[in-house]
Amino acid sequence: MRYELYYWPGIQGRGEFVRLALEEGGADYVDFALRPEDEGGGAAAMMPFLEGEATQRPPFAPPFLRAARQVIGQTANILLFLGPRLGLAPREAAGRLWTHQLQLTIADFVVEIHDTHHPLGGSLYYEDQKPEAKRRAREFLAHRLPKFFGYFEKVIERNAGRGPWMVGSRLTYVDLSTAQVIAGLQYAFPNATREALRKRPRLERLHEAAFSRPRVRRYLESPRRLAFNNDDIFRRYPELGG
Amino acid sequence: MRYELYYWPGIQGRGEFVRLALEEGGADYVDFALRPEDEGGGAAAMMPFLEGEATQRPPFAPPFLRAARQVIGQTANILLFLGPRLGLAPREAAGRLWTHQLQLTIADFVVEIHDTHHPLGGSLYYEDQKPEAKRRAREFLAHRLPKFFGYFEKVIERNAGRGPWMVGSRLTYVDLSTAQVIAGLQYAFPNATREALRKRPRLERLHEAAFSRPRVRRYLESPRRLAFNNDDIFRRYPELGG
Repeated sequence: MRYELYYWPGIQGRGEFVRLALEEGGADYVDFALRPEDEGGGAAAMMPFLEGEATQRPPFAPPFLRAARQVIGQTANILLFLGPRLGLAPREAAGRLWTHQLQLTIADFVVEIHDTHHPLGGSLYYEDQKPEAKRRAREFLAHRLPKFFGYFEKVIERNAGRGPWMVGSRLTYVDLSTAQVIAGLQYAFPNATREALRKRPRLERLHEAAFSRPRVRRYLESPRRLAFNNDDIFRRYPELGG
Repeated sequence: MRYELYYWPGIQGRGEFVRLALEEGGADYVDFALRPEDEGGGAAAMMPFLEGEATQRPPFAPPFLRAARQVIGQTANILLFLGPRLGLAPREAAGRLWTHQLQLTIADFVVEIHDTHHPLGGSLYYEDQKPEAKRRAREFLAHRLPKFFGYFEKVIERNAGRGPWMVGSRLTYVDLSTAQVIAGLQYAFPNATREALRKRPRLERLHEAAFSRPRVRRYLESPRRLAFNNDDIFRRYPELGG
């Protein structure tokens, strides 16, 4: 099965959670965001699905994945679909639901991270909401970052499986997504993240272990892995603190 | 199977999406939010799960559902679990994934609706972020409400099934959730919602049809259905417009 991934070019964004799973799972996939427009890639490749008649079940927004005749949207939903196919989800139904529940909590976390620089919404520039971003970022660093980190640390601690993971004794897609969020926060809020991780050794270990997997490491060192940048979810604006 | 639902007392909130499914599905369930504290209900009933050691797999936040030995969090995940059990999801895997994808898009919509009155985050009072709320609400009404409504209208239009629903020819949980969001928006932004629905007749019909189901109607007319109020996701603040 050859998968097709559609996403905005030039950023990691939410597409990155899918890419990490595809890479770790050794999947055969085409990343249309990396393909030049004149070869049928880029943002233009998404438009027939988003705005045209190319699918009866259109996604609301990228990323979306094409798998044979299915077009699947919503990052967590894509991972719910891919997990068992790529060996990145538990076998039993209860474990799969729990993995997905954690992924949805990661999704909530990502929204809050994004909103530190866009508290008034995505249709205004950051420059037009700087004072509001400062207040929101202060709230985020004081309350939300510690709450989410504390939660995930507890999840790892209570996991009865062996190893550094969240669910059972084998890596799942939610471990990859968690590692990605930590990497993003290290870029956006380096000091606050270092400080927060010092108190959550399990979370730091999970990040290291997930990003040390041979296939993941090969991907991270390849030109396919885009750099974090300030058009993305995780942004480094020193004036926001952290 | 007797289900147990845990949520904040006094508001509909995200718990309401689960309640509507349980009611339409004719489920046997205990709603701990409606049970007095001195009978083991209320917010206190949730705390052992959220903060204590009552479960190995703790939810991040309410609502959560107890089903035998499973404790399931994240609204969309609870509905993913309940859907097939209550006859509120399609039979085939692709249809289930699509229904869940739509539910996750509803969840995104709900976050944006909430953020119209709390753009700077939930740890500050509305009164401390009023000017920001006005700007965010303006953006929401101008751009986001039409975008989400237009999307869901298109989904109904492209559905090959008979009837007013989003997926296939039978009501699913996402129809109930969509109807709930419309009802909430009618409370929060009555004029803007009326105007937006005038251009989306399918969405209006879905709302009427879902809320006219005998079990749903009986629930909505019962004292179990709490009124919309300004401690909730959907809030009526005339100064925010709409």
